[in-house]
Amino acid sequence: MREVYLDNNATTMVDREVFEAMEEYFCKYYGNPNSLHHFGTITHKPLKNAFNQLYEGINANEDDDIIITSCATESNNWVLKGIYFSEILKNGKNHIVTTQVEHPAVSATCAFLEELGIEVTYVPLNDKANIDVSAIRDAITPKTALVSVMWANNETGVIFPIKEIGEICKEKGVLFHTDAVQTIGKIKVDLQDVNVDFLSFSAHKFHGPKGIGGLYIKKGLELTPLFHGGEHMGGRRSGTLNVPYIIGMGKAMELANKNLDFETNKVREMRDKLENALINMNDVLVVGRDTLRVPNTILASVRGIEGEAMLWDLNKAGIGASTGSACASEDLEANPVMTAIGADKELAHTAVRLSLSRFTTDEDIDYTIKILDSSIKRLRNISSSY
Amino acid sequence: MREVYLDNNATTMVDREVFEAMEEYFCKYYGNPNSLHHFGTITHKPLKNAFNQLYEGINANEDDDIIITSCATESNNWVLKGIYFSEILKNGKNHIVTTQVEHPAVSATCAFLEELGIEVTYVPLNDKANIDVSAIRDAITPKTALVSVMWANNETGVIFPIKEIGEICKEKGVLFHTDAVQTIGKIKVDLQDVNVDFLSFSAHKFHGPKGIGGLYIKKGLELTPLFHGGEHMGGRRSGTLNVPYIIGMGKAMELANKNLDFETNKVREMRDKLENALINMNDVLVVGRDTLRVPNTILASVRGIEGEAMLWDLNKAGIGASTGSACASEDLEANPVMTAIGADKELAHTAVRLSLSRFTTDEDIDYTIKILDSSIKRLRNISSSY
Repeated sequence: MREVYLDNNATTMVDREVFEAMEEYFCKYYGNPNSLHHFGTITHKPLKNAFNQLYEGINANEDDDIIITSCATESNNWVLKGIYFSEILKNGKNHIVTTQVEHPAVSATCAFLEELGIEVTYVPLNDKANIDVSAIRDAITPKTALVSVMWANNETGVIFPIKEIGEICKEKGVLFHTDAVQTIGKIKVDLQDVNVDFLSFSAHKFHGPKGIGGLYIKKGLELTPLFHGGEHMGGRRSGTLNVPYIIGMGKAMELANKNLDFETNKVREMRDKLENALINMNDVLVVGRDTLRVPNTILASVRGIEGEAMLWDLNKAGIGASTGSACASEDLEANPVMTAIGADKELAHTAVRLSLSRFTTDEDIDYTIKILDSSIKRLRNISSSY
Repeated sequence: MREVYLDNNATTMVDREVFEAMEEYFCKYYGNPNSLHHFGTITHKPLKNAFNQLYEGINANEDDDIIITSCATESNNWVLKGIYFSEILKNGKNHIVTTQVEHPAVSATCAFLEELGIEVTYVPLNDKANIDVSAIRDAITPKTALVSVMWANNETGVIFPIKEIGEICKEKGVLFHTDAVQTIGKIKVDLQDVNVDFLSFSAHKFHGPKGIGGLYIKKGLELTPLFHGGEHMGGRRSGTLNVPYIIGMGKAMELANKNLDFETNKVREMRDKLENALINMNDVLVVGRDTLRVPNTILASVRGIEGEAMLWDLNKAGIGASTGSACASEDLEANPVMTAIGADKELAHTAVRLSLSRFTTDEDIDYTIKILDSSIKRLRNISSSY
């Protein structure tokens, strides 16, 4: 049976080149980079190379910081909790602006900060599944310590107006964080072009390994560490460096940018083919279809069919997809973005997310269209609501 | 030139068997375990197996929690900061008891909590480089929220009286955390035998990969998460699971325990041979020599010789050692444990740590003795203080 992986917004396959870049740092060059002897120092050059790949990848300035973390969940928790200590407790601010559709790593951390007395404004989606710049502007008060808005939404792929929000934050003198997890490798992330103070990313969303990510911190900004300890990374994030994964993430970042044109053209072409075929199956709504989206994502609502029933059919045919964020998929809850755009409960339960990658092939797409077609017919035949 | 790695307390080589256990989870079985499709669910069985290896490895009860973290630095930060939120802020306690020789992941986090108004008692070493149980007992007050004492010291290898401290904590109704990073794979860690509420460990100290660790949490204990988010690990620690490293850490734990007899006998025999040879080079002090130590560690002070000068000679001969914790070794500061046992400044700067592993060979030891002998002669000849 054909195996088709269309859940690349949940996680991606490690690129063989990334694996090969990491491979010899497990059993051969295993020294601790903080050690003074040659077992340690031999890792310095490849690590420096990896950092260069990361800086180039997001076009950061040399004197900005890119700090390695264990995942974007860590990066997001770090920004929000760091700001709590360095900005809120110290400078008397007490307000955070974010959106209703952030990843749980942001929204659950905000909920935690609310328990500590912080006020959080959750800006809703507009009817194009996007965020209104004016809504962010209106939410900011003199007490606002931070605005945190994801760059692209993990469910819909809709690209939020990060450049405009960044300008507002600069104008208002408010710190700005963006969770760019779903952006890197899909569209160009250029920190010379946007005013961003903190940016989170995660290697496993762009064909690097799971369990490593980063936090970009603009030059000179204070942020109380989440990990205190042995003063690694200039004291900003302690813990022995995960040498193979850092090297792997650097390589993955380089490859992500090298393949951007392919993503923009070929992946988008395959996505559009799949999406158009779905639309032609009638009563299918694609969220954010008339908005700017990353090239690989489809969030579709297929009226009359429970998302889980569809996943079951797809999975039986070797196709991996999801009803939304993998972080919530064990809950079997309604898709939160569908809910946020005001879909009724029945519609919210019909969401299926299909997310491609540069390893998706035309044959994968043709096969998926065939399976979707027969599955939708079968399930609508037995549907009580169609 | 022979390559001899004697810095296993800083980090260890990944065991080839561990690498092989992880290998296919990068490019082949790369699904997100939280996904509902077969790309995700295929990881469940190997992950369950890895957790079994971890539970068996430290003899935890089924209903205790072992939560995967990115390193022991995270585990240690989590315990201390989690207790700050769940015990100190909520229950009005304001005091932590620890020692003067904890890893910076504990001591720097304690210093951070002091800034927030928490009182911390740092119990000193006694003249055997050990911790007096009575000193811990005396430090506990009705306001004490947590006692945190490492199981074995990273510099000297001295084994602290965890069983006795655990009994005191139980008797006094105080939570007890131990950083067992330097213990696993060196002596048996049996949680049925000691009263420990929280236990930190790190795979890269027992021939697993860098960038993954764990926190054992006794059944039913509350601990505010350090990572909020997608409710992974039962909501205790969010973030996409690092599947290959979890599988690798499980295998590394299994191998660590399988090789405990070898560690206790053969590694200790090689360590003692090296140590006795050092002692015979005159005016050499081995810290904790008349105390119970893990079998692999020597912290030696060679009078008249700067630790860094010795490291330089060793490194030139292909031997990797350290002057103390790798986390501090870029600082070139006096060894903190030497300082803590009251060594004068000159002596504190003479510390060299040699730490073996199950991959150390008799030939390595013979070669190291030869190099040490000529280096000590050479350096003492040019020493201004000998």
